[in-house]
Amino acid sequence: METDELAARIRAGERRALARAITLIESGRADHRAQAQALLDALAATPGSALRIGLSGTPGVGKSTFVESFGTMLTGQGHKVAVLAVDPSSARSGGSILGDKTRMERLSRDPAAFIRPSPSQSALGGVARRTREAVTLCEAAGFDIVLIETVGVGQSETMVAEMTDLFILLMAPGGGDELQGVKRGIMEMADLILVNKADGDLKPAAERTRADYAGALKLLRRRPQDPDGFPKAICVSALQEAGLAEAWREMQALAAWRRETGHFDARRAEQARYWFAEEVRRGLLARLDHDAAMRTRMARMGDAVAAGEIPVARAAAEMLALLGTAP
Amino acid sequence: METDELAARIRAGERRALARAITLIESGRADHRAQAQALLDALAATPGSALRIGLSGTPGVGKSTFVESFGTMLTGQGHKVAVLAVDPSSARSGGSILGDKTRMERLSRDPAAFIRPSPSQSALGGVARRTREAVTLCEAAGFDIVLIETVGVGQSETMVAEMTDLFILLMAPGGGDELQGVKRGIMEMADLILVNKADGDLKPAAERTRADYAGALKLLRRRPQDPDGFPKAICVSALQEAGLAEAWREMQALAAWRRETGHFDARRAEQARYWFAEEVRRGLLARLDHDAAMRTRMARMGDAVAAGEIPVARAAAEMLALLGTAP
Repeated sequence: METDELAARIRAGERRALARAITLIESGRADHRAQAQALLDALAATPGSALRIGLSGTPGVGKSTFVESFGTMLTGQGHKVAVLAVDPSSARSGGSILGDKTRMERLSRDPAAFIRPSPSQSALGGVARRTREAVTLCEAAGFDIVLIETVGVGQSETMVAEMTDLFILLMAPGGGDELQGVKRGIMEMADLILVNKADGDLKPAAERTRADYAGALKLLRRRPQDPDGFPKAICVSALQEAGLAEAWREMQALAAWRRETGHFDARRAEQARYWFAEEVRRGLLARLDHDAAMRTRMARMGDAVAAGEIPVARAAAEMLALLGTAP
Repeated sequence: METDELAARIRAGERRALARAITLIESGRADHRAQAQALLDALAATPGSALRIGLSGTPGVGKSTFVESFGTMLTGQGHKVAVLAVDPSSARSGGSILGDKTRMERLSRDPAAFIRPSPSQSALGGVARRTREAVTLCEAAGFDIVLIETVGVGQSETMVAEMTDLFILLMAPGGGDELQGVKRGIMEMADLILVNKADGDLKPAAERTRADYAGALKLLRRRPQDPDGFPKAICVSALQEAGLAEAWREMQALAAWRRETGHFDARRAEQARYWFAEEVRRGLLARLDHDAAMRTRMARMGDAVAAGEIPVARAAAEMLALLGTAP
């Protein structure tokens, strides 16, 4: 299919065209990459106005159930919801967070929803770049809410926070020492903490956990992009679909405040700057991997250095000269 | 001074020539860099045989006192000891770990010792590269033991472990929850844990802390580069100069075993490979900073991207084309 036609079908909201375009974007082939690039250019003229929501939580907190309930509530209100994922482990394990769509049975059959598992790339950077581009496509296809979920470990949170307007942390009720499990850096990124499973026997524990997090959030340095009372911790039950409307009201209130005060656009602008610099850095480093001759050269030079036949600095300088770069 | 003459003076063990060469190496000027490169090439023919010992510990564990006592013991045994530092905070704070030589009064007046504070570079990578090159110079100058100390926080430990043969963790006596303060990753790098301040009132606490660490070390996965009983935790008192001879015996035993079994050379080879790849990556990325025109271009393109005038991917592709790199 021609790029123009693909772009037109995406703009018309055709889900199959959207799925196909995301596959194109995720491809490692050079000709696909060029086509993906042309497609993104063509769609750049259709600026998306979706609210981008990042969602993080360790396995077991009920993330799939939450996305299912929350997403279904939103489509019920007339929204079009896209769900994407950044899961660097999916390349290794073969199974992504969203791989098992059966866990989101309702939402995956919902015509107003679009669910896409994490791209299977070996490096987190690659996964994140592709997901970020998929957001653009979803917006062009008319989705007005994009949920991007990630696993609650390592660097992936930072990447997701760099491509979303709101960052939500989903937690499970736990003992008093539960707080220690959350890295301070991740707490600092959160706009809203949702303590899930606030139902049945777990309800009192969920409320205690919520109070713990609310206390912890108060101890963090006040951020300029937060109105009074934010970041906030509230209880939800994805299973019983309780607290979801309140959570959505809080997200909307925060987004509205940030739009009014300019923080919303400022964050988007900074994010664009971040990904631009990131793309340039990655493109430069990719020269080392892109062609087989260069890879062989790097490996051979590495062997010579390891064997002590050539000093590190001299070897690096020779390699950089080959790459057209002064040392 | 000509490079050949500087090299000859370093080989003759002239401390002022060594200090001058390290200053040259730390300089950011392009002509200095070329000269530094030539000097390193000239000295590469004089392979150093020093034992490189990494030493990490958070502020307050008595690192300066330990280096003073331990270094003096070693020079007393006829060794020539160089002390270097990797301290990424020194650029900001202006004061490095070793900046205050008065805390190592004896050692800094010792003719068989050479103390050099951390280079003041803004990025940890830069600090580490320069320190690694300084090691080469110290070895060429005849120092047979090189101590490289670092602060016990963040990534600097990994960098120091990547340039040393042994990695020592210096700890202070503490309560039972002290163990939690040490990141697992740092524990896993340690070949020897020295619990300092095992003197006076603190002696019993030091012994308890030592036992705690010894227990924790046993829980770690066995590493192929360790003989039976390693990694190990022992008590020392830098102040009373107690346990230092034992610590040194352990280091020698470990180094001897690794030399015999080939692990010593294998580690050096892997380290060379690591720094080579690191230098090449850094050299490539440096193109973005090196010339003012490129910096201006990056900044302007970043502004355009932030303003939404050009899509991220297109801007990056244009930038990479300017850099002579296909996207």
